[in-house]
Amino acid sequence: MKSCGVVVEYNPFHNGHLYHLEESKKHAEADCMIAIMSGNFLQRGEPAIIDKWYRTKAALLGGADLVLELPFLYAVQHSDYFSQGAIQTLAEVGVDSICFGSENGRITAFTEAFEHMNKHQEEYDVTVRRYLNEGYSYPEASRLGYESIAFPSGSIDLTQPNNILGYSYVKQLLTYAPDIEPLTVLRKNNHYHDEEIHGKIASATSIRKELLEEKGMTEKAEQSLPPSTVEVLHQYKNNHGIWHDWEAYFHLLQYKIMTMEESTLRCFHGVDEGLEYRLKRTIKEATTFHQFISSLKTKRYTWTRLQRTLAHILVGTDKQEARVFLRETPPPYARILGMSETGKKYLRAVKKETSIPLITQPQQLDHEMLDLEARAAAAYYSVLTPERRVDQLKREYGPPVIHS
Amino acid sequence: MKSCGVVVEYNPFHNGHLYHLEESKKHAEADCMIAIMSGNFLQRGEPAIIDKWYRTKAALLGGADLVLELPFLYAVQHSDYFSQGAIQTLAEVGVDSICFGSENGRITAFTEAFEHMNKHQEEYDVTVRRYLNEGYSYPEASRLGYESIAFPSGSIDLTQPNNILGYSYVKQLLTYAPDIEPLTVLRKNNHYHDEEIHGKIASATSIRKELLEEKGMTEKAEQSLPPSTVEVLHQYKNNHGIWHDWEAYFHLLQYKIMTMEESTLRCFHGVDEGLEYRLKRTIKEATTFHQFISSLKTKRYTWTRLQRTLAHILVGTDKQEARVFLRETPPPYARILGMSETGKKYLRAVKKETSIPLITQPQQLDHEMLDLEARAAAAYYSVLTPERRVDQLKREYGPPVIHS
Repeated sequence: MKSCGVVVEYNPFHNGHLYHLEESKKHAEADCMIAIMSGNFLQRGEPAIIDKWYRTKAALLGGADLVLELPFLYAVQHSDYFSQGAIQTLAEVGVDSICFGSENGRITAFTEAFEHMNKHQEEYDVTVRRYLNEGYSYPEASRLGYESIAFPSGSIDLTQPNNILGYSYVKQLLTYAPDIEPLTVLRKNNHYHDEEIHGKIASATSIRKELLEEKGMTEKAEQSLPPSTVEVLHQYKNNHGIWHDWEAYFHLLQYKIMTMEESTLRCFHGVDEGLEYRLKRTIKEATTFHQFISSLKTKRYTWTRLQRTLAHILVGTDKQEARVFLRETPPPYARILGMSETGKKYLRAVKKETSIPLITQPQQLDHEMLDLEARAAAAYYSVLTPERRVDQLKREYGPPVIHS
Repeated sequence: MKSCGVVVEYNPFHNGHLYHLEESKKHAEADCMIAIMSGNFLQRGEPAIIDKWYRTKAALLGGADLVLELPFLYAVQHSDYFSQGAIQTLAEVGVDSICFGSENGRITAFTEAFEHMNKHQEEYDVTVRRYLNEGYSYPEASRLGYESIAFPSGSIDLTQPNNILGYSYVKQLLTYAPDIEPLTVLRKNNHYHDEEIHGKIASATSIRKELLEEKGMTEKAEQSLPPSTVEVLHQYKNNHGIWHDWEAYFHLLQYKIMTMEESTLRCFHGVDEGLEYRLKRTIKEATTFHQFISSLKTKRYTWTRLQRTLAHILVGTDKQEARVFLRETPPPYARILGMSETGKKYLRAVKKETSIPLITQPQQLDHEMLDLEARAAAAYYSVLTPERRVDQLKREYGPPVIHS
């Protein structure tokens, strides 16, 4: 059975994702599509609009055969750790290829960029370090670093966000699992961060913005979503009462920051360079999450970096535990969130060959990182009513979603 | 100017408190009544129904001349530390006497009990230790200890809650400030914990129960309150939107407990003897605060002890800081919450003679315990809407209530 892996967030699963799954399957000539998906918190540090179980269901209905969870600690990270966790896990479950979407569409553009980086790594590092010392944010310093080493024409432009992720996937593969074939498909609609929904394919960001602002499904949003996702979104809201966004969590966050001393805040993953003082000062006057981050933001900290750090504060990720776990290569386990019949068959075949345990429920494994997962779930569901919260916390220990 | 000190919580200030202030003033032949009052969290570990500023106003309108704040760390403690903090502070501001309410009404009953305890301290200690080791709660072990040393008739019954506080006041005075005269007045209505409101004097507990259950003022409650308190209660609700009770804080508490590891919970003041494990286990199924404490309760932990510990978790009182500060005798400062003209005159007279600083605003003093006070205020106001919360936090740094 030939399998192809994709790294996804599906927040929510939209027509672009459907297209990507279908195209990847064709391009990879795969029988089984394996998605590794961020759980309840995403790479940019946001809480998912609906939880990982409903997003898994949408993914299976959209053609995924196996959905694995990228653990919280790897998901809410800048792209290097994010890719590391995702790609290494896919490698461990024996995928034959990995396929990602790109604006460029040619895999050679990425592999050439990798070779060029290898040749000029030191130059790049020196430049980045210089700009970091001058107080630039990491993404900005990195961009200037890429500029300084003059990539050949036809190579990818590493300043475009989706290229950065794609590039880091390729880097991981070529370094960690060179037998796995990197593939890319051209993204439909070049506008990764566009705020308006265009026609039938729109960015997840714009769809979420529409849904949250209108507090309900709109015609515009519906056009960009497969009917199964529309259904799943409705079901979630009916059963849980809300669609999640950071504003819902703000009072918990402000409570936590206000009742902790600087010395305690400093212990959370991402609270570096004196950020704890800025947090304590700024939280006093903040009345919304958006206002809070706006006030926090300086040249040094990007919005997403701050958002991720706040997610780690919300969940309570300790620096020590982060340091220990992030060093683990590959990630210590993979949790299966959902599977189709094909996915089930595939699992039966590879189960004995994987070097990391594949679990369907956390109680099957005794690993400290699962405590952090439990806390992430607890934080995520804290905004539900008490009874729903108690139920959803139980779901965390339940079985995968089965799609027959 | 002759002054008399009273130890109060005024949650809320009712007719019984009014009577007590008037009687104490007469009995002590005082010109100036000085109340030391718990702030926003009370000795039994509850959040005050309205904040300390409004309760101060009610107290001044009811005849208090000076209202001092018993710092959070001393207020939310079992009776020994509570008394220690309160009595020592009153001593430091130079009161001539201290007057408390009792079921007995004779001060000699208390002083005799003190002398009897001194003679039989060791016996008592041995008995208490034995019962504690058998898993009894401290109040229960203490009661059995008192039983074992056979107090003379006419001495007080130390199993009645208000006698315990009165006794500890007397103990503090006779040990720490023997020049101050202990006085007692007979409480009207012998039922300290009665749940039904009788006539015009009712317990603060029953009044709060009525107000919170009916979510508004009732005729029954109004009969037990001075008109000024009725007014103050209305004003608070209009300006802040709520009357506070533990249920309002439950979602913050459950969020905090669920996103902390046992090792972190263990660092909070009062989380001893493995309580951190019980907290983590029990919180999962709890949907209300009441249900949570009911599930937590065992023979070993009384309701109030648990409630206090949960208040310390809510605010984030660290064991280390508690240990250091509780050892300070007398408390390191006293904050003036409010004063009448008489109180102002009194302060002018004693200011130079007090050995501890008297402050009107936290920024006048650089002391670590004020950070804990700020956190207590932040926790208390966390249940207001964001804008009100920001305003009230500023109030924490504002001036005392002046009653002319």
